[in-house]
Amino acid sequence: MSDNLATKLLRRHLHSGDLKPGAEIALTMQQALLQDVLGTLVMLELEAMGVERVVTRPSVQYIDHGLVQSDEVNADAHLFLKSACERFGVIYSGPGNGISHPVHMERFGVPGASLIGSDSHTVAAGSLGMLAIGAGGVEVALAMAGEPFYITCPKVFGVELTGTLPDWVSAKDVVLEMLRRHGTSGATNCIIEYYGPGLAGLSAMDRHVIANMGAEMGATTSVFPSDAAVERFLEARGRGGDFILLERDEGCDYDRHDRIDLGELVPLIARPRSPGNVVPVSEAAGESVYQAYVGSSANPGYRDFAMVSEIMAGKRAAEGVSLDINPSSRQVLQALVSEGKLGALIAAGARLHQAGCNGCIGMGQAPATGRNSIRTVPRNFPGRSGTREDAVFLASPETAAACALTGKITDPRSLAMPYPKIGEPEKMPMSLAGFVMPAANQRPGLYRTRHTPSLPDFDAYPDRVEAPVLLSLRDDVSTDDIIPAGQVLPLWSNVFATAEHAFEQVDETYTARAKEAADTGHVIVAGVNYGQGSSRENAALVPRIMGLRVVIARSFARIHWQNLSSFGVLPLVFEDEAVSIEIGDMLTIEGVRDQIARGSRVEAAIRYADGRRSDLVLRHDLSPRQIDILTRGGVINWIAHRRDNRSATGAA
Amino acid sequence: MSDNLATKLLRRHLHSGDLKPGAEIALTMQQALLQDVLGTLVMLELEAMGVERVVTRPSVQYIDHGLVQSDEVNADAHLFLKSACERFGVIYSGPGNGISHPVHMERFGVPGASLIGSDSHTVAAGSLGMLAIGAGGVEVALAMAGEPFYITCPKVFGVELTGTLPDWVSAKDVVLEMLRRHGTSGATNCIIEYYGPGLAGLSAMDRHVIANMGAEMGATTSVFPSDAAVERFLEARGRGGDFILLERDEGCDYDRHDRIDLGELVPLIARPRSPGNVVPVSEAAGESVYQAYVGSSANPGYRDFAMVSEIMAGKRAAEGVSLDINPSSRQVLQALVSEGKLGALIAAGARLHQAGCNGCIGMGQAPATGRNSIRTVPRNFPGRSGTREDAVFLASPETAAACALTGKITDPRSLAMPYPKIGEPEKMPMSLAGFVMPAANQRPGLYRTRHTPSLPDFDAYPDRVEAPVLLSLRDDVSTDDIIPAGQVLPLWSNVFATAEHAFEQVDETYTARAKEAADTGHVIVAGVNYGQGSSRENAALVPRIMGLRVVIARSFARIHWQNLSSFGVLPLVFEDEAVSIEIGDMLTIEGVRDQIARGSRVEAAIRYADGRRSDLVLRHDLSPRQIDILTRGGVINWIAHRRDNRSATGAA
Repeated sequence: MSDNLATKLLRRHLHSGDLKPGAEIALTMQQALLQDVLGTLVMLELEAMGVERVVTRPSVQYIDHGLVQSDEVNADAHLFLKSACERFGVIYSGPGNGISHPVHMERFGVPGASLIGSDSHTVAAGSLGMLAIGAGGVEVALAMAGEPFYITCPKVFGVELTGTLPDWVSAKDVVLEMLRRHGTSGATNCIIEYYGPGLAGLSAMDRHVIANMGAEMGATTSVFPSDAAVERFLEARGRGGDFILLERDEGCDYDRHDRIDLGELVPLIARPRSPGNVVPVSEAAGESVYQAYVGSSANPGYRDFAMVSEIMAGKRAAEGVSLDINPSSRQVLQALVSEGKLGALIAAGARLHQAGCNGCIGMGQAPATGRNSIRTVPRNFPGRSGTREDAVFLASPETAAACALTGKITDPRSLAMPYPKIGEPEKMPMSLAGFVMPAANQRPGLYRTRHTPSLPDFDAYPDRVEAPVLLSLRDDVSTDDIIPAGQVLPLWSNVFATAEHAFEQVDETYTARAKEAADTGHVIVAGVNYGQGSSRENAALVPRIMGLRVVIARSFARIHWQNLSSFGVLPLVFEDEAVSIEIGDMLTIEGVRDQIARGSRVEAAIRYADGRRSDLVLRHDLSPRQIDILTRGGVINWIAHRRDNRSATGAA
Repeated sequence: MSDNLATKLLRRHLHSGDLKPGAEIALTMQQALLQDVLGTLVMLELEAMGVERVVTRPSVQYIDHGLVQSDEVNADAHLFLKSACERFGVIYSGPGNGISHPVHMERFGVPGASLIGSDSHTVAAGSLGMLAIGAGGVEVALAMAGEPFYITCPKVFGVELTGTLPDWVSAKDVVLEMLRRHGTSGATNCIIEYYGPGLAGLSAMDRHVIANMGAEMGATTSVFPSDAAVERFLEARGRGGDFILLERDEGCDYDRHDRIDLGELVPLIARPRSPGNVVPVSEAAGESVYQAYVGSSANPGYRDFAMVSEIMAGKRAAEGVSLDINPSSRQVLQALVSEGKLGALIAAGARLHQAGCNGCIGMGQAPATGRNSIRTVPRNFPGRSGTREDAVFLASPETAAACALTGKITDPRSLAMPYPKIGEPEKMPMSLAGFVMPAANQRPGLYRTRHTPSLPDFDAYPDRVEAPVLLSLRDDVSTDDIIPAGQVLPLWSNVFATAEHAFEQVDETYTARAKEAADTGHVIVAGVNYGQGSSRENAALVPRIMGLRVVIARSFARIHWQNLSSFGVLPLVFEDEAVSIEIGDMLTIEGVRDQIARGSRVEAAIRYADGRRSDLVLRHDLSPRQIDILTRGGVINWIAHRRDNRSATGAA
């Protein structure tokens, strides 16, 4: 039987379940990657679970998001994370080392290995032939604690690449072409597998560019073979010993398929508001440009910056254009210095920023209102830049540089110059400055400030719920509606501080009313697609801490539904479309634990505000594993219980 | 008659008045320097004054403070400032070009010229033999409009330097020694004049370090001769033609005098909370270090960064120490690249930040709570770093590097290495990238967003005041109490948005009550030293816009007193110490304009909240010029009136 590469990787890491698209499977994840904004909660979860030492090897905590440090909150969080790394046996990559995804690929990426990360772009490591998946924080914490990782078995979407990229067209244009063809949900529940003769012209870092933005198509992950390009990549970093050859079997099948002739591609650009708004650059040419922004995990390679340097060499950015250079890592910055590429950028008028995620996630460099910002980043959702009325375009470094030169959106092919040929340095600098390796026998306490309180204890799920409905919500409520980002982001390490902002954009009285109802807990009623958007787990965790016990919705977004049950909130759907429940109505469910264990039907009663009462039939879709987790009060209790059991068994 | 250099410079620029310490003199200011945070109001004032084209040459607007761009406010302000530069004939130095003070010195500094700037460290240009003074925004606006600049004639404080600095001791230690000896108010109303054989060992940029922190001693400015060191400095920047020799006369006198033998100095450090808390580094040695921060206008030279590079070369910053490198300008960054000094810093684990003021004024890089941050910056007031409970030490680059290496406060003399000898590049790179020169005949409109509304019209001072007292304040209310910085800083361009925060740390009902009293205007009563601290003019302007007509205090801080009258608020002091006035009391002054014109005595009446009435004798100390300004409704009306008169005369 001939397998595609994705199936080989899934089989290699399969813990349990059948590799049938749509079925639940469990995978063993070998490596773990955390970023700082979501990492603090993961560390607090490890603490609450009673984990002594994580089992994923390596596990790496990257400080790449919260680098602005406008006040002490970021810096205090870094100290907390550093102490947590020592405590749990995690490598700490300090501020200045760069963005998790390229740094992990360069230093720790191993062909054939599995990687789970608390960041959606973790998938970029598929460039090395890894099985790399982004997940919610508590799922990463569970994997770090040695638990398998449960997902829906994806389809495999084969994409054959043929031909050679023309001058001025690069890897970013390949993934923009995928987005142009398939849109932002075009690879949902798929692994995208790239193969074919066109790969020969794509370096491992080019493949990172393509794999990274698989996240923008909703892909579970993307995979590339581990071939000569990967071997060269590892060799240049002194890690040739980690190389293994890993390829699809000839003649294998795919669940879906597409083909791209690289030679036919042209420079592409995504217009504002969605990575899916892709058109040829030539169609947007001539529009004025305020900012040309280079960097992020979507174009993190040495060549991406060196290309801009070569294009700008001896010239100046157009008057008034902010040319923002954001090195992706310390070693890329070092290489730009040692290869003589940095000076031309500075002389051309660039602003050179510290290595990190920076403006890609709205941490600085926000553009002026309504002015066009051409960026090499992966996402251009409205407001993500930090500017309320922004206009962010996504493009390749070549296109961004052309725009910087002319001050207008410019097809780089129209520049009157030869296409620069960028050679990768034979040896990339690999200083360990800024890394802290955990000592084998160290078990220090966690560094605490008021910004990182421990998680509270969670009680087991009660057998009887009688609680008021505090919110009755519209369709499509997002996790951004539940827990805001932006100004609230620095507070995410503190669930109690975050709680003060829960639902504030929906109903600012929620927090006060939840506190009043603390004795009984409370219920939220919602429409379809409840909890869509970002996977942020505090959208379940924080309301749970405030007393949320049941959410009744018309339907749930998948990840939030998972998060609710993981934190001990019962997610139910209406069986009867016509039922209407409002704020102030009182829900009663008797014998909850028995009911959910017996089947999917849940009988409840509602006492309306006007005194009427009626019965209510609801449904749950939890697996036995999820029911076990829920009734114990969530994954944190569940894992602690399992560990206690194991210890008890060990002692017997 | 033999003159000291300061007197020569004052005489050179004297517009009117006698050069007697304590007397009011008027100076003609040739050049003007603006930074962005305070520059927006200056531009709005120029607009409100009806200025067509500024007369100071050059006038330069630097974008160096608001570089974080967490949202659109900074970027929109940059666009406003750029348009205002074109409108009024000002050179625009865009974000990425660096800190105003070193950039101005390198590009526009001319020995013997006068410079006024809306930033207290404008005084650093005294390093070139300039007469460089920092002032409130509207005073800068007036100077740009061609008006003379009024100040109290300072004393001249001569400081003779002898000997040669030992290894590991540098210019920063010289000015820290001055602070150790004289404290933070030790040079108030003085020009500090450095002279003597010790100068031979101090480069022009070393002198910048010393002149810069004269601001921390309260000096009006500092001056150095224009000698061979200045000539070398200008030659290296292709500006040798701007050199003139400018020195004190031998045998001249000083109002005060001190002498420093450079050979006796040791590495010094200012402990947290004040630049005056100076001790030898050896006394603080051994305390743990969280951050070593290099940059700012206090240590902006190529040598300051190259020194750190040489000390760190081939080594790594101690584990967990954040080594933050903040290049002061584009050309310093370019020189570090071209001279091969940047790579060692990055390899050593440094975080390389964009060129600008950055963390020196709390824009990023805030340290963790209570952790020691060793900085080469000029100020360490509590909270200025952005961290509420901070611990910032001030030191030389040598000391900061030693601390970074060891992770403890370290006397750099204890490093087991030879003292690096840093040669200045023979030619400094002087790219004009990032500058926009105003076109001669361009008069574009101002770029507006909701963040930069025009100033409102100001009415002439009424002849009768009958208005309620809205605040009755303690002693020592500062301009920080009146208009907060921090989170409110980005709003400073918008006086109406700022108004919502006026006095919020003192009485959060003020704004609402001022709006209620809009018809009559209102009065504030205060204790001694009202308006101390920062010179921010919006502490007068914003309450004025909210209806403030009279402040009655026991005494005023000088600059705020000036600002009040400049914006049409009558500052009065009590003649009778015993009078007590409270919130809700009603003040009446009949025939205000006649009374203040006639003499210093002002008769008023007070109607207390309980219905009692009594007469009240108050006093003003305004000059005839100030009275004219006040009665016209402030300097903006006054200057517009003068311009109208001139036009009328010209037309006649």
